[in-house]
Amino acid sequence: MIYLDNAATTKPFEDTLKESVNYSYENFYNPSSVYLPAFEVKKYIKEQKEQLKNILGANECELIFTSGATESNNLFLQGVLTSNKKEEYIFSLGEHASIYEVANIIKSKGYTVHFAKLTKNGQVDIDHLLSLVNLNTRLVSIIHVSNETGAINDIKTIVKLVKQKNSKTLVHSDGVQAFSKINVNISDLGIDAYTISGHKIHALKGIGALYIKKSVNIKPIIFGGGQENNFRSGTENVLGILSLVKSATKLYIKQKENYENIKNLKIIFLNELKPLNNIVLHAQNDNVSPYIISLSVMGIKSEILVHMLEKKGVLVSTGSSCSSNKKQAGNRILEAMGCTKEEVLGSIRVSFSEFNEPNEVKLAGKIFKETVNELIQKIK
Amino acid sequence: MIYLDNAATTKPFEDTLKESVNYSYENFYNPSSVYLPAFEVKKYIKEQKEQLKNILGANECELIFTSGATESNNLFLQGVLTSNKKEEYIFSLGEHASIYEVANIIKSKGYTVHFAKLTKNGQVDIDHLLSLVNLNTRLVSIIHVSNETGAINDIKTIVKLVKQKNSKTLVHSDGVQAFSKINVNISDLGIDAYTISGHKIHALKGIGALYIKKSVNIKPIIFGGGQENNFRSGTENVLGILSLVKSATKLYIKQKENYENIKNLKIIFLNELKPLNNIVLHAQNDNVSPYIISLSVMGIKSEILVHMLEKKGVLVSTGSSCSSNKKQAGNRILEAMGCTKEEVLGSIRVSFSEFNEPNEVKLAGKIFKETVNELIQKIK
Repeated sequence: MIYLDNAATTKPFEDTLKESVNYSYENFYNPSSVYLPAFEVKKYIKEQKEQLKNILGANECELIFTSGATESNNLFLQGVLTSNKKEEYIFSLGEHASIYEVANIIKSKGYTVHFAKLTKNGQVDIDHLLSLVNLNTRLVSIIHVSNETGAINDIKTIVKLVKQKNSKTLVHSDGVQAFSKINVNISDLGIDAYTISGHKIHALKGIGALYIKKSVNIKPIIFGGGQENNFRSGTENVLGILSLVKSATKLYIKQKENYENIKNLKIIFLNELKPLNNIVLHAQNDNVSPYIISLSVMGIKSEILVHMLEKKGVLVSTGSSCSSNKKQAGNRILEAMGCTKEEVLGSIRVSFSEFNEPNEVKLAGKIFKETVNELIQKIK
Repeated sequence: MIYLDNAATTKPFEDTLKESVNYSYENFYNPSSVYLPAFEVKKYIKEQKEQLKNILGANECELIFTSGATESNNLFLQGVLTSNKKEEYIFSLGEHASIYEVANIIKSKGYTVHFAKLTKNGQVDIDHLLSLVNLNTRLVSIIHVSNETGAINDIKTIVKLVKQKNSKTLVHSDGVQAFSKINVNISDLGIDAYTISGHKIHALKGIGALYIKKSVNIKPIIFGGGQENNFRSGTENVLGILSLVKSATKLYIKQKENYENIKNLKIIFLNELKPLNNIVLHAQNDNVSPYIISLSVMGIKSEILVHMLEKKGVLVSTGSSCSSNKKQAGNRILEAMGCTKEEVLGSIRVSFSEFNEPNEVKLAGKIFKETVNELIQKIK
């Protein structure tokens, strides 16, 4: 099997997983317990958190471990809500379901919620976004790298321009598809809050984190024993935390090299597709992550192509698979980019990871091309 | 080290952990993805859920996997809140922080919240509890087995009597220290909702579940991709789920035998303490789980004793260690049982698991006795 659905989830690194499992098996103590072996676990987790802060380029902050990016996004978005219903909230139309659904909840509570348009290349339309910012704007949340198309939003510029219009507006970004893949430095981005996930970077499912600037205050959504500096109660997921930080560390050291390798994989794959004349590539300007290719095969329904490819040993996606409600996911974002109905119906997402090798990607591209040709023949 | 703090957390079973790690490493796919290997993961998780329902004796229900008991408790308590501020909520004074803190949040939102008293043996005072139930009572939440004292609440009777006074009142129980330890059959309890945890039953930290009766409707607290039948979004924590269900299965098969063994351990430990005349045992009627011993050593501060015992290789707790705010935890519950200040200051929790052997428990009891005698000599 050639696995090219790494935006959905990634295979764990064997070494960081093993190391994390071994530590948390041997040092199974509750970090809140009052004897030395437990203190040592607490200290080790704290060191891991500091390590993650370093990787993120994060100073003067809270870094809160959560059960995943969905919880991180919920924690921040629900956590900044105040009782002042005059406050306004801005999201892009390209957000992940864990932002988009919370945005709709916020709207249903009576707050004003705006959705900023996307350009045809999948980035948020910054002019439109800025036109929505006013003195009531409490929050702007814009995805860093689109899980659907790979389109990169220029978060640094967005933060700067939003704060110029309203210095009190908070800016959050869902960095799940950016962190450990493209260069992410939180201090440089100047952002107030940032979400990351474990299982998208070869760590475990069920772990994520939320960065928040020290000066920003949020209410928790899960209350109890007061762990994570009272921002997130519940006994720490020691294994998950270790797997996240160890995998992030491993990727951080080779981030630039990995990026170049993945860029090469993208070129190799697309080269194989060149003879096809019914392919439409989405998000094709310079601000796109090479980890994700979004394309439409005109005249072929994506479900059929995905199943044919699977039979031939290539796993790709029809769209965002982080949603169990398939129908809504891919379509919403491609439609916001102005894709036609035919493009949406034929949309495929191919996504790479550090595990993919040039040879298998070339083979996958070849199989993709052949399968598309076969299906076209059948239709004719 | 003799580990007698199993109410704080338990060492994972090596075999179920290994099995779970291997499966989730090999089958790392996102359960929401649209190809066969992902469908198989989804199917496997579904089977695990059915297995857990069987173990719980749960029919016609939702069983929602969460990031742990703290989230399960928060999900249910926050999820049943309606906008009708006339509705009243009842908790016992013996609840875990993840209930108690949410109760205070509910109170701060303007709802009427009552706390039912505890008897001197640590069970909820059922007469007092029933006196608080009226036609406005939305929810009663009573811990099944106290994490502090082991006191067992008669949930079946409580459900029956509460529903007699108001058939619409929902009854929830935090079953973290009951599940897999004492006999738990949810259909028999007749309860509307029930919380369980992974890491208290030799599974991983970061996984738990919430049972809710099919007829009961709650709002989610985490929104997004619509996983867990829309009750809890976020990519499924496959490893955590497997470790929970596999450990629960292992314990379920031998539950009665384990219970008898633990009962024996309690007797062995307490026998060693008999020569001491400055010990006060708490929760000493018939409705107490043998997994937890709560006692006070009069005249000796618990922190000092815990540290002395640690030096001699015995790990016990000063009180509930699921809380990172140590000061509040143990004291609140013992005080509610009418313990004196001296008893609270000297309170120790000893808690067993299936890993403990009679010999080591006997030795731990002997060390306990000797250490108490040494400390008394020093004071004199």
